[in-house]
Amino acid sequence: MDFTIQSALVPVEHGYETVDVQIVAGRIAAIAPGLQGVGTIVDGRDKLLLPGFVNAHTHSSEMWQRGIIPPTPLELWIAELYEFEPLDPEQLYLSALGTAVEVLLSGGTSVVDHLVMIEGRELESIAAAVRAYRDVGMRAFVAPLIQDESMTAGMPSGGTAQTHAPYIRSTAETLAIIEDAIAQFHRPADGISILPAPTGIQLCSDALFEGCVRLSDRYSLPLHTHLLETRAQQLLAHEKYGYSAVEHLKRLGFLSPRTSLAHCVWLDDADIAILAETQSTVVHNPLSNLRLGSGIAPILKYLQAGVNVTFGCDGAASNDAQDLLEAIKIGSMLHNVTDVDYRHWMTPRKAAELASLGGATGLGMAAELGSLTVGKQADLVLYDLKNLSLLPRTDPIGLLIWGRPTQAVDSVWVKGDRVVTDGTVTTTNVDDLRQQLFDRSQWITNRQSASIRQVEARYRAVMNLPAQTPGYS
Amino acid sequence: MDFTIQSALVPVEHGYETVDVQIVAGRIAAIAPGLQGVGTIVDGRDKLLLPGFVNAHTHSSEMWQRGIIPPTPLELWIAELYEFEPLDPEQLYLSALGTAVEVLLSGGTSVVDHLVMIEGRELESIAAAVRAYRDVGMRAFVAPLIQDESMTAGMPSGGTAQTHAPYIRSTAETLAIIEDAIAQFHRPADGISILPAPTGIQLCSDALFEGCVRLSDRYSLPLHTHLLETRAQQLLAHEKYGYSAVEHLKRLGFLSPRTSLAHCVWLDDADIAILAETQSTVVHNPLSNLRLGSGIAPILKYLQAGVNVTFGCDGAASNDAQDLLEAIKIGSMLHNVTDVDYRHWMTPRKAAELASLGGATGLGMAAELGSLTVGKQADLVLYDLKNLSLLPRTDPIGLLIWGRPTQAVDSVWVKGDRVVTDGTVTTTNVDDLRQQLFDRSQWITNRQSASIRQVEARYRAVMNLPAQTPGYS
Repeated sequence: MDFTIQSALVPVEHGYETVDVQIVAGRIAAIAPGLQGVGTIVDGRDKLLLPGFVNAHTHSSEMWQRGIIPPTPLELWIAELYEFEPLDPEQLYLSALGTAVEVLLSGGTSVVDHLVMIEGRELESIAAAVRAYRDVGMRAFVAPLIQDESMTAGMPSGGTAQTHAPYIRSTAETLAIIEDAIAQFHRPADGISILPAPTGIQLCSDALFEGCVRLSDRYSLPLHTHLLETRAQQLLAHEKYGYSAVEHLKRLGFLSPRTSLAHCVWLDDADIAILAETQSTVVHNPLSNLRLGSGIAPILKYLQAGVNVTFGCDGAASNDAQDLLEAIKIGSMLHNVTDVDYRHWMTPRKAAELASLGGATGLGMAAELGSLTVGKQADLVLYDLKNLSLLPRTDPIGLLIWGRPTQAVDSVWVKGDRVVTDGTVTTTNVDDLRQQLFDRSQWITNRQSASIRQVEARYRAVMNLPAQTPGYS
Repeated sequence: MDFTIQSALVPVEHGYETVDVQIVAGRIAAIAPGLQGVGTIVDGRDKLLLPGFVNAHTHSSEMWQRGIIPPTPLELWIAELYEFEPLDPEQLYLSALGTAVEVLLSGGTSVVDHLVMIEGRELESIAAAVRAYRDVGMRAFVAPLIQDESMTAGMPSGGTAQTHAPYIRSTAETLAIIEDAIAQFHRPADGISILPAPTGIQLCSDALFEGCVRLSDRYSLPLHTHLLETRAQQLLAHEKYGYSAVEHLKRLGFLSPRTSLAHCVWLDDADIAILAETQSTVVHNPLSNLRLGSGIAPILKYLQAGVNVTFGCDGAASNDAQDLLEAIKIGSMLHNVTDVDYRHWMTPRKAAELASLGGATGLGMAAELGSLTVGKQADLVLYDLKNLSLLPRTDPIGLLIWGRPTQAVDSVWVKGDRVVTDGTVTTTNVDDLRQQLFDRSQWITNRQSASIRQVEARYRAVMNLPAQTPGYS
């Protein structure tokens, strides 16, 4: 449906202007002051219009375990996470819906869902998430999380002999699932894309990465993976390849302008040069990196090297929310402690640009999304500048990115379709969602994980931690 | 008014229990399942009851400049902050009210307001803030921000000869203002305390610190100051004293069990031992420390040394919000990247305890506030566990502290008086507050600060930064 947003504040090169924005057939048709009203009229007065942000890395099913996994590094955390899977497809539907609602209400119009699948019910799992994103009307890049090595292979050996059970499924079978998913669900014009997305070098063979590159070439798909999230993964990469994991991914042909790489915490200068050269995108997940103690990704170095950067929430069990504005805020402020020269620090305006155009770029969609540009698709967010959290009036983008906006999103459109009005998601019944999340869960106290105990001794040995220390504070 | 909260979830040693809580004459009279309902009945079903948190360091007037000061370190940031002061008392009233509303709606019942005063209208300034906190019904520790050296003295000389204009007022006159404020406004039984609170070693003489200690002794008042927030302050301390600022404050008698110290970023192990020995409290302001690039305070070391720690938002121009739950979340997660042994990391439950009992302890109020204990004052917060941001149900405190609660506060009581009901502050008209903040401000684009330019050359020289670098990104 065509519409015109009248008298909204939009950022221009130096400051802001008040303009009208015409949307025709799902695309931005005109941006200027005093335009004729076309279609439905939307009052933009005292509101800020921005392109939608991209939550460029999450795992929606983790919503079921947010708030509960103890403060542990990734390698232990993930053992507990998987111990308390699997879910049923209806749960996957609900957590994708919940993720979408939280992302929409924090400025996001797109999500990259690195989706955990139920073993043996992989296509059903993908179908559940796709259905949720279609129902709510969010643009989704569903990236089924695949591996072809067993979980135990994901930890460095530290020079000890280790054997690992073969993975439950062959590499070819896994790739076939992705190809089936592409055939059934990949409908980019409708806002649903399927991405080949190996888990990461810690759990994937070269053959799996190469198979994903072939699918990407055949179907023109973006690629996505985790990359060097933790120090343990860096150690593992050196055990596995004898040289840099980034160099290895480059040799496999996995790095490209449509490749986005979650985390990138443990890269050195030579690795950074490879990301710049291959025009790959770094997806920064600051809250997850802090929560899991993974480290501080060298984001200011990436920007100085010309590497495209954008932001993700990561899964809700390592964040433990899906508020995109929170990830952008912390992801822009955190790096000020890593460089004494403040002239390198990220401005709120730069952070907003990385969250929108940077996200689109990493998905090969920069020509279609990510800025207020005539001809681009209308993935738009209108913020209420009379919200208490955005007052008093100063710099609207400064308030939005550095503040702590609370219910500041007034309206959201995806492909020109309105999905949020007056701060309420209109495409799904949020009260019903809340009730279902409530009914399908229990308050948990002192959940005991057997898995953490199983992997902890080896982790502590590999990381040179003392075997015996007092328990959690 | 007496009341009974029925069937609320409260934390116990291992997990949670559902209990009733009787409040009589402003104090917790009983906590147990199945109590007789006394006074007004409050339905606590599917709600979590916690003691109120303390926003243990802020500067309320900075709300007028949130979102606008560019990404710069404290020494430049503060030059711009003061350039765009002063305010009028009505503005001070509104920003204190706005601060109180945001803190109450993020779990706080107490605030330490290190209050910037209008020159020549000091007691009027204090009166304005006190009136705001009385009107809204928040417990406030108003700590007028005092110094007796000029702003230029706050930056290290780097070995160059520097002269500074004398401060506008003598040390004795400044101390007299504080003594007047105590006489006029210090009414702890009504929830308003006045604290002697020198700015910090960078702008205060020994005489001012000693005068504050005398006032603290005479009137039984907590003490508050900034301590070693930045590397530049550490350099300045060594120029000024020739040894540690912490040792110096100890010699001045300023460190005690009722002294709270904002920031404490640049302390070494000997300094930490002094804080432990004197039982001083560290107020951690993680967002401000990141925003200003001040550094990461060694919070895990403080905890291991037995130093009491609590959290603050710091002023809204360096945060740029007043959401206490956000400060607690980042303040608990941030340190995981500083210690590879996850067994030292802070749990959500520990963070919640530091934010409540830790805050009360730093103000000498641990016997009165900070825990759900029979006999203590009823500064209480009830959280709605059916809020989407706290679902699905897992560990309630994990969800609250690690998640991103949005409108999750259902009710708040201070001294047993209800100030928030159904998520709405009932003691003040928030719509009217919003309108006044809106009317008294303007959207600002590219505000130019003359002050930053004046101090920048010296700052860059002292910090060994190249004189010429490209502008902000």
